[in-house]
Amino acid sequence: MKIAVIVTLKKDVLDPQGTTIKKTLEGMSFNNINNIRQGKYFEIDIDEKNKKKAEEKVNEMCKKLLANLVIEDYKVVKPE
Amino acid sequence: MKIAVIVTLKKDVLDPQGTTIKKTLEGMSFNNINNIRQGKYFEIDIDEKNKKKAEEKVNEMCKKLLANLVIEDYKVVKPE
Repeated sequence: MKIAVIVTLKKDVLDPQGTTIKKTLEGMSFNNINNIRQGKYFEIDIDEKNKKKAEEKVNEMCKKLLANLVIEDYKVVKPE
Repeated sequence: MKIAVIVTLKKDVLDPQGTTIKKTLEGMSFNNINNIRQGKYFEIDIDEKNKKKAEEKVNEMCKKLLANLVIEDYKVVKPE
């Protein structure tokens, strides 16, 4: 079963990478951009048929490794 | 209007970062992982009320800066 995770910086944490991308896009004459924030995306293919169990495992992975909960939030989603 | 983009490596492109994460998780005794691939997530807040126009702009940003279409695919999605 494939499960995806999106990890984003918490709202109040500065995102210099996103700011740089915004400035670069403005330099390429994309206007009207209010804000850009960058996050991470993981696609996890796990050998577990029970959806609930698989999501539980992925949640644990996020808490222990994939996300730094001090500054990041994560969300388990369907893979795109 | 907020629009999100997920950028992933194409299926046949090696993802050493994903492999490292997989090995690390296995070292933390998470078993049954078939595969992990890492991608990027962008949340773009654009000053454009027309959804179609906003998505067109974001598509153009992806083609010109956010994604390297030689090795990456991107998908415009609703922000999480």
